[in-house]
Amino acid sequence: MDNFRTDLALERRDLYNKAHNIEKDIEGIETEEEKIDDKIGISRVKVTNEKGEQAIEKPQGNYITIDFKNLKIATVQEIENAAEVVTKELKALIEKHINLQEPILVVGLGNIYVTPDSLGPKVINEVDITRHLLKYLPDALDKNTREVSAISPGVLGTTGIETLEILKGIVDNTKPKLVIVIDALASRSIERISSSIQLADTGIVPGAGVGNARKELSQNTLGIPVIAMGIPTVVEAAAIAADSLTLLIKKVQEQGESNQFLNQLQEEDKYSLIKEVLTPEEYNFIVTPKEIDELIEKMKDIIARGINFAVN
Amino acid sequence: MDNFRTDLALERRDLYNKAHNIEKDIEGIETEEEKIDDKIGISRVKVTNEKGEQAIEKPQGNYITIDFKNLKIATVQEIENAAEVVTKELKALIEKHINLQEPILVVGLGNIYVTPDSLGPKVINEVDITRHLLKYLPDALDKNTREVSAISPGVLGTTGIETLEILKGIVDNTKPKLVIVIDALASRSIERISSSIQLADTGIVPGAGVGNARKELSQNTLGIPVIAMGIPTVVEAAAIAADSLTLLIKKVQEQGESNQFLNQLQEEDKYSLIKEVLTPEEYNFIVTPKEIDELIEKMKDIIARGINFAVN
Amino acid sequence: MDNFRTDLALERRDLYNKAHNIEKDIEGIETEEEKIDDKIGISRVKVTNEKGEQAIEKPQGNYITIDFKNLKIATVQEIENAAEVVTKELKALIEKHINLQEPILVVGLGNIYVTPDSLGPKVINEVDITRHLLKYLPDALDKNTREVSAISPGVLGTTGIETLEILKGIVDNTKPKLVIVIDALASRSIERISSSIQLADTGIVPGAGVGNARKELSQNTLGIPVIAMGIPTVVEAAAIAADSLTLLIKKVQEQGESNQFLNQLQEEDKYSLIKEVLTPEEYNFIVTPKEIDELIEKMKDIIARGINFAVN
Amino acid sequence: MDNFRTDLALERRDLYNKAHNIEKDIEGIETEEEKIDDKIGISRVKVTNEKGEQAIEKPQGNYITIDFKNLKIATVQEIENAAEVVTKELKALIEKHINLQEPILVVGLGNIYVTPDSLGPKVINEVDITRHLLKYLPDALDKNTREVSAISPGVLGTTGIETLEILKGIVDNTKPKLVIVIDALASRSIERISSSIQLADTGIVPGAGVGNARKELSQNTLGIPVIAMGIPTVVEAAAIAADSLTLLIKKVQEQGESNQFLNQLQEEDKYSLIKEVLTPEEYNFIVTPKEIDELIEKMKDIIARGINFAVN
Repeated sequence: MDNFRTDLALERRDLYNKAHNIEKDIEGIETEEEKIDDKIGISRVKVTNEKGEQAIEKPQGNYITIDFKNLKIATVQEIENAAEVVTKELKALIEKHINLQEPILVVGLGNIYVTPDSLGPKVINEVDITRHLLKYLPDALDKNTREVSAISPGVLGTTGIETLEILKGIVDNTKPKLVIVIDALASRSIERISSSIQLADTGIVPGAGVGNARKELSQNTLGIPVIAMGIPTVVEAAAIAADSLTLLIKKVQEQGESNQFLNQLQEEDKYSLIKEVLTPEEYNFIVTPKEIDELIEKMKDIIARGINFAVN
Repeated sequence: MDNFRTDLALERRDLYNKAHNIEKDIEGIETEEEKIDDKIGISRVKVTNEKGEQAIEKPQGNYITIDFKNLKIATVQEIENAAEVVTKELKALIEKHINLQEPILVVGLGNIYVTPDSLGPKVINEVDITRHLLKYLPDALDKNTREVSAISPGVLGTTGIETLEILKGIVDNTKPKLVIVIDALASRSIERISSSIQLADTGIVPGAGVGNARKELSQNTLGIPVIAMGIPTVVEAAAIAADSLTLLIKKVQEQGESNQFLNQLQEEDKYSLIKEVLTPEEYNFIVTPKEIDELIEKMKDIIARGINFAVN
Repeated sequence: MDNFRTDLALERRDLYNKAHNIEKDIEGIETEEEKIDDKIGISRVKVTNEKGEQAIEKPQGNYITIDFKNLKIATVQEIENAAEVVTKELKALIEKHINLQEPILVVGLGNIYVTPDSLGPKVINEVDITRHLLKYLPDALDKNTREVSAISPGVLGTTGIETLEILKGIVDNTKPKLVIVIDALASRSIERISSSIQLADTGIVPGAGVGNARKELSQNTLGIPVIAMGIPTVVEAAAIAADSLTLLIKKVQEQGESNQFLNQLQEEDKYSLIKEVLTPEEYNFIVTPKEIDELIEKMKDIIARGINFAVN
Repeated sequence: MDNFRTDLALERRDLYNKAHNIEKDIEGIETEEEKIDDKIGISRVKVTNEKGEQAIEKPQGNYITIDFKNLKIATVQEIENAAEVVTKELKALIEKHINLQEPILVVGLGNIYVTPDSLGPKVINEVDITRHLLKYLPDALDKNTREVSAISPGVLGTTGIETLEILKGIVDNTKPKLVIVIDALASRSIERISSSIQLADTGIVPGAGVGNARKELSQNTLGIPVIAMGIPTVVEAAAIAADSLTLLIKKVQEQGESNQFLNQLQEEDKYSLIKEVLTPEEYNFIVTPKEIDELIEKMKDIIARGINFAVN
């Protein structure tokens, strides 16, 4: 079994291919790259059968990763461009599952008091909701307005209740036809922190990336399609060390200083190796960039805007 | 019909007695005062039958108001004393309805982004919950530990979902035996802002005090007893003006300068009069003291501590 | 002596004219109104001599009040329009005192932890400063770039230091040619709360409007021109009551129910009367609208944008 | 020249000794360890002459590092114990330089909007200041009360003004006899993040640990003694990787799998090596633990309490 420690299908595909020393995708995995401009790129990974599922340990479905460059210094215009890309991809994914006016529930996972985990609740605060207006002030809205509601259910550690237990009741009582879930993820690479969004129509397992998996939120458990918008905001110390070691060995080899041990190490899963070393020392911290406050603010603007134009 | 514009049974009793020019409580209303120390006082209002219900428009049950003096400059010790009083009263109310180990759900109503409405969510963040530990780490806890869970469901304006719709599902799925609801209220008097707590075992109608009533949270709607902890955090401009006018007329009368019109005005419901004047001018603002941030912090400490010692 | 309890020259002029029962401005006061659109109006009060100074107790100079309607529900476009008006008025005022490239220091008074007093520090966080870049990275900027620096000095209650003592040293050491000071004010009317900006080139007395005057910040004390941007964010309970009483008496008189006492009261300074009644009761709270968090956010956007386009 | 990338004298001493393969301190450096209890330890490094200065590139003076274990889950009692240790050490350091009643200025460096850099401003908000009371309400205080003032001057990036330029004027105008500066530092090891405090009576160079050095704050520049309280809150990715690699090689060697290259690598400065590899890839992020919000809150409580009991 591969130890991916990332929620991104794209990174899992890369790790799988590397681990098995293959260049082309295996059967069951289809990938595609698109470059929007010099700041924004899109990667599409499609898992089409059980073989693909087993390879990257992600259920069959569509995984779209949108990467932004230099988000930290993005201008207002660049934020709006990014949101537009999110809108286009999200809208297409929604239309695969429901009709134009069918009701949507937007769910922001996470903890408002923990900066790298606060993205979900912050997005919810800016989603344009219509459900209460359609109910109490229907004349104030265009008659084709889609019913949109939103909830930020908190985290198990402060509620004592599984997210699924909370959402199950809300879905039963308010009857949306599709759920969009926003969640902060763990990434394998620090460069992706608050600089990537993964859209997937296969649901989500909250906390999976940080080794603290909760009950999955998906069509299986909620009875309606679940689109997950996952944003990497943290990374393990072991992942940073593993990536650094990869770069180090590469450089050492370039300088002709290598030797059998390093060559062999280059082939291995350095992440697992380092994790094994760090864990007993209680040293495998989960970290986030120093600038996380600002990264979260910018990502929140992109996602809220992206959702608002996609659903309304 | 009286126009109370207050959620506090105590204030309604006072307004009713004044409006009907009576000194002693009518049949169906029983009241009692207790002075804890020179900073803390308790008033108990019991509505015992339908006559009492109709008089003050509050359902039959127990209403306990705890008043704190000078909360703004309270010391850590005074905060702890206040919390102790809350614990004692809350514990007694809980024990009227459920047994020692029966599960409790604590609900913090309100909007974290609106300071005078942020008390509920802030308390939830500090409630000691046990439900997830009892489920996943039972050995870590004493075997008599009560199951406590907590949720901050947001407000209709940001979720589009009635609080009742959210809670109904959670109660069905997690099966608590009693709900404690924390809500920010409107008061009739600015002195009570973030300086009083009303405990009631009759449930709550969120938003009632600001003329924006939602579906009630009570045994009727949730199927289990609901203890409401209401904390006044806002007051209408009309209430401030009415109270000021009362004081003004009183002074004018003392100075022998009064006249028939003022004497008559003194008997009247100045609040309704002023509200009528202010409303068409869009001048009947809802206000909160300048120091609301600090008042909310202190009240949060009292309530969270008060609950933690009462339920665990 | 008139008891104005407002920092706005415009309100003082109105109160003075009313108290002295005059309709036209006295010599020494010149006023002018301008309507930008149906949301934004400008009032200009010019105090031209000592007589004017004594009348409204404000030093000679220019006082420009910009009023915004319905700021609470303003769109992004309306915020930008409002900022443009601020830019135009501020730029004109700056150009009366210094040349295009002379350095400016922007000062945000107030306390970040007290919502109605947090505007100044929040604006400082969004002012585009250039002084450090001109010093350390001069090639990164256009050579005509004005030197802009900014400081949020805190309040006497948390620093123990008079704002003047802090600014004096900074002005001496960094040598700006003009200071722009942003401060939260008390208004006489709740409608103006976070809906008006007063620009004045006469400096400012921090805390004056709430009866807690500090040493003035002005050309007299700092040695360079001081433009004050004052934004009402709080109002006294007595002012609310006085305004309400005025409306009430007016209505009573319209209904022919009046009498000599009320007619006389109508002429009087109800604010002083009510203040006198409320103060011994410790009831003269300073209040702010329930929506103050959002009002401050929007006003911050207007002022920061207004300044950034005016100074750069 | 050694490349320390840490502001902690203790870590520099360790790095120096390791780099030069020595076990005992060189002449000019004296160290001492003290264990308070199983949670708190103190290390004292004294730099006594120029040789010591050159070795660890820190000026002559006293460096006291207090380490806390498991701060993340510290109880209220443990926080108070930690504050008591800070008080004792800080008081001793203050008494080396000034008398009991001589005035102190407390300076909180950092940016309130950047969580890992917000410690200084947050502490300032909780320091008990007396200077304004001694000036305006002297009778309210005991006559031996020390004059304490406090300021949070902001950062160069938002003010455009060097901290030294701001403090110089304040010191000149308010005449304290000693300055205490609180600053967030970079550490070489992630374990120390928000778990250590370094006290030093040699002043501070803001931003030094993150390669962004500002003008030093010290007796040389301010004319009075400067006690620095430095708290590590961030760490470089390269430092994490270097530490991980050290652990990895150690393990490999234990397993007898080592070889000449690794043995040689073990002796080298892996940090510099990795930094060299990461920097051209723009991969040398500065990171902070996921739990930084809570760590900062707890550290703020320790430091504010520690200072308040030390100075008053």
